[in-house]
Amino acid sequence: MKRQADSAESKAGGRSIAAASTNVVWHHASVTRARREAMNGHAGCVIWFTGLSGSGKSTLAHALEEELHRMGCRTYVLDGDNVRHGLCGDLGFSDAERQENIRRIGEVAKLFMEAGIIVLTAFISPYRADRQRVRGLMGHGELLEVYCACPLAVCEQRDVKGLYKKARLGEVKNFTGITAPYEAPEKPELTIDTTHDLVGCVKQIIELLRQRGKIPDAPER
Amino acid sequence: MKRQADSAESKAGGRSIAAASTNVVWHHASVTRARREAMNGHAGCVIWFTGLSGSGKSTLAHALEEELHRMGCRTYVLDGDNVRHGLCGDLGFSDAERQENIRRIGEVAKLFMEAGIIVLTAFISPYRADRQRVRGLMGHGELLEVYCACPLAVCEQRDVKGLYKKARLGEVKNFTGITAPYEAPEKPELTIDTTHDLVGCVKQIIELLRQRGKIPDAPER
Repeated sequence: MKRQADSAESKAGGRSIAAASTNVVWHHASVTRARREAMNGHAGCVIWFTGLSGSGKSTLAHALEEELHRMGCRTYVLDGDNVRHGLCGDLGFSDAERQENIRRIGEVAKLFMEAGIIVLTAFISPYRADRQRVRGLMGHGELLEVYCACPLAVCEQRDVKGLYKKARLGEVKNFTGITAPYEAPEKPELTIDTTHDLVGCVKQIIELLRQRGKIPDAPER
Repeated sequence: MKRQADSAESKAGGRSIAAASTNVVWHHASVTRARREAMNGHAGCVIWFTGLSGSGKSTLAHALEEELHRMGCRTYVLDGDNVRHGLCGDLGFSDAERQENIRRIGEVAKLFMEAGIIVLTAFISPYRADRQRVRGLMGHGELLEVYCACPLAVCEQRDVKGLYKKARLGEVKNFTGITAPYEAPEKPELTIDTTHDLVGCVKQIIELLRQRGKIPDAPER
């Protein structure tokens, strides 16, 4: 593949490839993250929700996504629905498999972020070390950890999926909060009381995104 | 989290969650793929490049991405640079690991597609069965397989990364085309002669995307 010498060359971060046969230096065209973000009108970032089963992570993530989408932002939610049966379909719920699950999710979230997208992840992610490892994949300030704080009793009362009942009966093993630990974040970017109204929870995160310069300050619409 | 009864409910495909504590039915806000695609002005899809090392997959993918980005499309390239050290950093080059590598890439490509993005994958992906499995993850017509046809002799002469030389010396094992097989696609959506000029190669794929209704027919700019 010969490239015209006067054709557009990459403007930032393009890697060159020497084509031995012609001595022409080829450039990877480089659609950089900065160009994607400029096109989108907002930064790519990761909003990492963590909390007990039933604490509202997925509901909150989808409600936030709805609001961001209406503002014209490019978003994506990674949650059990689209990850556990696909990319991580080969993994169970042992400690090692949970760790690998979170690692893969972190890596995929990073790819989406680099694509200029606001990616929202909604997984229990009970272990501090696993979440810390994911944070370490990203640059400073790129990951915003949102702790969905909700008393176990409330989560268990909601029992949206009927899993707490099964866990109490011993029918589900290694269930976070019952027979497996949940390690609350020590310094999350935001702690949200998810016993409060959903609209208010969404507003808090929108405000955080503004403060951190991820989305414009301008009026929403 | 209580949701106002009159607040916006999801308009399409929203899943409902019964909150046992209040008997209020909550809806996951649903930013559907259709809404993302409408916002983007094009369809999400997967352009799966396959071919020998040095056949121009990555160069072509990045050049195509540059062109699509200029047309205002949302795109992302998955290639060795951003996948092999991250998501698939735990995998080597045995047959089983290559298979798992391609499986994960397929699953991630699907997520990007569902996010409304035109995702371009640039991996040798030498085995028909692996590529067929990836195709099976997607809906009909969502994956476009592009075979980068380039004679082994030309790839070896280019030897961009010096790997053919090492493979001939036995310093690299399981090297596709030398010590491991490459199974060319039988019915790719497009076969491109990548010994031709890059601009022409890009145009062929843009034309394919138009024909398949992935991007608008309108003038590019």
